[in-house]
Amino acid sequence: MPLRFLFAFFCATVVLTAQESRPVAAVQREAIERIVKEALGESRSFTMLEELCRKAPGRLSGTPAAAAAVEWARQTLIDVGADTVKLEPVTVAVWKRGKIEKLRVSEPAWAASEPLPILALGGSIGTPVGGITAEVIEVRSAEHLRSLGDTVKGKIVFFNQPFDRTLVQTGDGYGGAVRQRTRGAIDAAKAGGIAAIVRSVTPRLDDHPHTGAMGYEDGVTQVPAAAVSTLGAERIAKLLSKGKVVLHLELDCRNAGRAPSFNVVADLTGREKPEEIIVIGGHLDSWDVNDGAHDDGAGVVHCIEALRLLKTLDLRPKRTIRVVLFMNEENGLEGAKAYFEAHKSEMDRHILALESDSGGFTPRGFRVDFSGDSMDVIKSFGEALSVIGADKVTGGGGGADISVMNQAGVPLMSFWPDGHRYFDLHHSVLDVIGAVHERELAAGSAAIAAMVWMIGESDHDFGRTKPRERPRR
Amino acid sequence: MPLRFLFAFFCATVVLTAQESRPVAAVQREAIERIVKEALGESRSFTMLEELCRKAPGRLSGTPAAAAAVEWARQTLIDVGADTVKLEPVTVAVWKRGKIEKLRVSEPAWAASEPLPILALGGSIGTPVGGITAEVIEVRSAEHLRSLGDTVKGKIVFFNQPFDRTLVQTGDGYGGAVRQRTRGAIDAAKAGGIAAIVRSVTPRLDDHPHTGAMGYEDGVTQVPAAAVSTLGAERIAKLLSKGKVVLHLELDCRNAGRAPSFNVVADLTGREKPEEIIVIGGHLDSWDVNDGAHDDGAGVVHCIEALRLLKTLDLRPKRTIRVVLFMNEENGLEGAKAYFEAHKSEMDRHILALESDSGGFTPRGFRVDFSGDSMDVIKSFGEALSVIGADKVTGGGGGADISVMNQAGVPLMSFWPDGHRYFDLHHSVLDVIGAVHERELAAGSAAIAAMVWMIGESDHDFGRTKPRERPRR
Repeated sequence: MPLRFLFAFFCATVVLTAQESRPVAAVQREAIERIVKEALGESRSFTMLEELCRKAPGRLSGTPAAAAAVEWARQTLIDVGADTVKLEPVTVAVWKRGKIEKLRVSEPAWAASEPLPILALGGSIGTPVGGITAEVIEVRSAEHLRSLGDTVKGKIVFFNQPFDRTLVQTGDGYGGAVRQRTRGAIDAAKAGGIAAIVRSVTPRLDDHPHTGAMGYEDGVTQVPAAAVSTLGAERIAKLLSKGKVVLHLELDCRNAGRAPSFNVVADLTGREKPEEIIVIGGHLDSWDVNDGAHDDGAGVVHCIEALRLLKTLDLRPKRTIRVVLFMNEENGLEGAKAYFEAHKSEMDRHILALESDSGGFTPRGFRVDFSGDSMDVIKSFGEALSVIGADKVTGGGGGADISVMNQAGVPLMSFWPDGHRYFDLHHSVLDVIGAVHERELAAGSAAIAAMVWMIGESDHDFGRTKPRERPRR
Repeated sequence: MPLRFLFAFFCATVVLTAQESRPVAAVQREAIERIVKEALGESRSFTMLEELCRKAPGRLSGTPAAAAAVEWARQTLIDVGADTVKLEPVTVAVWKRGKIEKLRVSEPAWAASEPLPILALGGSIGTPVGGITAEVIEVRSAEHLRSLGDTVKGKIVFFNQPFDRTLVQTGDGYGGAVRQRTRGAIDAAKAGGIAAIVRSVTPRLDDHPHTGAMGYEDGVTQVPAAAVSTLGAERIAKLLSKGKVVLHLELDCRNAGRAPSFNVVADLTGREKPEEIIVIGGHLDSWDVNDGAHDDGAGVVHCIEALRLLKTLDLRPKRTIRVVLFMNEENGLEGAKAYFEAHKSEMDRHILALESDSGGFTPRGFRVDFSGDSMDVIKSFGEALSVIGADKVTGGGGGADISVMNQAGVPLMSFWPDGHRYFDLHHSVLDVIGAVHERELAAGSAAIAAMVWMIGESDHDFGRTKPRERPRR
């Protein structure tokens, strides 16, 4: 498309040679090839991720592991050659899982004391000491729950909406089922329930529960909430199909005030327009039950490695590339809010914010909500990334952290890796370094580095975007 | 004439509704959506592959496991509703690995008796009883070997060309390094060497050797050949960098004549042009050291599931879809040759042959060597598969089995899954069902089913292709 090519023309020649002027396409192709070769050949992404997972597993906000992740990120960004590296203060809410997490069958008698694998949801209160024992009522949705009226009173509400695995984009399956986790405790309490047990939000049938954030609402009784494994959920449903089921739930998790922490912010200063900022980010914190390898260690190293690649290969773009490693994405988004507050005055100079928070799988492309010219430009950049399989450019850009900047009109973009495997392990014990593939991770770093290099090198005005609702986490 | 068909290449409306005539794009979209939902929702691909791997692991040609695979395929194709299922005789060469596979350091003294992980290459003769002990000479290529002259005489030739991991397409890395495996014994013998030790053809550094086929040449002395793990290769190279190295090699593998076996051939007969045949195939045999889960159990179930999907969803195309499960791809290609001989008279009615033999990973698209109109048609089919991420259509179509049909001008196409992980496990003990992802496998089946449905439903004349060289395995 001629229009697309027209906007795709940018003068990157000076990056490589100040003397001669070469066709843009050739310069672009050469830069991308160099980025890809360096990323795959050196495989620094994986080395960094191994280190992060070893030094700071289970880096939930406010823990020593989260502090270790901050220090690791600071030092690593210095090591890879960022021009500036800063720790920016964030105050995070602290939640402690505690030591007791039990769900057992009390009735029917023949299944009594059968354990069901659970994880408390992040933000949940505990049960009274000794736990609670109550009849269970199964629901598929908040609407279904509301329709049940008084029968819910005094019961444990069991949300059993399955993840729709017929959908190709697993993010859609997640989005369709996650409300039971985020708002289950509120919905249960409003209906008179005394606790919420939520089917884990994953397409797999297995014994691993998946935790995640949940919330309470002012004026609504706080009840405890936990995720049960999908096989555990199937078990409860099967028992219920035969008659009355009573469960015993005990949790000693608790909210434990607030604590100081940091975002880590590093710049590769633009060589011509240093004031124009392109943010690339991921989140440093993870859940406590795993290494946070894919969520979001992968995103963190994607961004650090992207900066390293551009620095090492002498591909400093015209615009500033800023790596922002956010704290507290999982249970509060305080890092995202703190970054926004601290940088409010320069938001109009934030050209674009890109987040990688969908895992370290083989790249597919990018999601971004541009229209018109800017979409044509980004699509032409996408086409140039066909060599690394990252050429799909489609709508739906976002990311929990960067979404906060959207209120100032900053265009949002997300890195889009293949999603088939992600929700198998998301927020469960399965999210460990062994589930990450070295080449796939490196390919993602290369795709991001090449994309932000093209954006940073471009003279195109990407404009502002219309503020919209915060996307689901 | 073909152009005339470009916008009306199939009138599939009758498949879905005989009453009303709907736009092609809508019919196509609906069919693809149904295929994808059924494939992902039912996940029969994985169930079938688990069964094949359990019933017939290590199904090297001529073994009882290979016979079990034939029987499993026959029964499964009947179960999924093929119109005809036939076993077609093939005579295969039999190779036996034996029980002894040892490579140890003899010199330097301080490293003596250090074991190095190896697998004999398929087709290799054994060593004399008691093994051979000889000095090692390291080479990077056949050219390098030839340049060394008489110094090679009486030595073990160590081929240590690494897999180029900077290449995005791992198939290119494989192609660039596999000659040392297929022809290393010939090259070594011609130079006066007495055995060939070959660095495993994989991008990974680990302790798992990768076997594979090798050959001898008439008039050239037969010497034994084995693959050493990549870490083993690094170890030998490190020892050589310090001085003379003597290795002890012992193998009792042997070639053991010929044996009867079968291809399994099943048709979903075309509803309007049953005489026009579209072959979709994979190979039933595998190496003996693994389950052959990705290579090529995945390809086998891709094809069986594609047939099942079309049958179950009442999407029988105009042209016949023929599943051909070839025997002996790994070490002889006798199944491919036997199919060609048995069906020579109908080769001119073979519209296209598609092979899936690159693993069961997330789909990327298809490789095919059409030009002009036919490429446009296939690319439009590819675009329709964007929903399942299988929209890339590029050159380089082929597959060891179907390549035999190329001599009769049959156009060749290969299913193209993501390749980052494939050569990690290819021909090694790592190729097991646990390395296959349920959704990724199902997505591949859906992509193949939808692609062959579109081809089978199309009235486009895809023409013939120019015979070319057999692609590398």
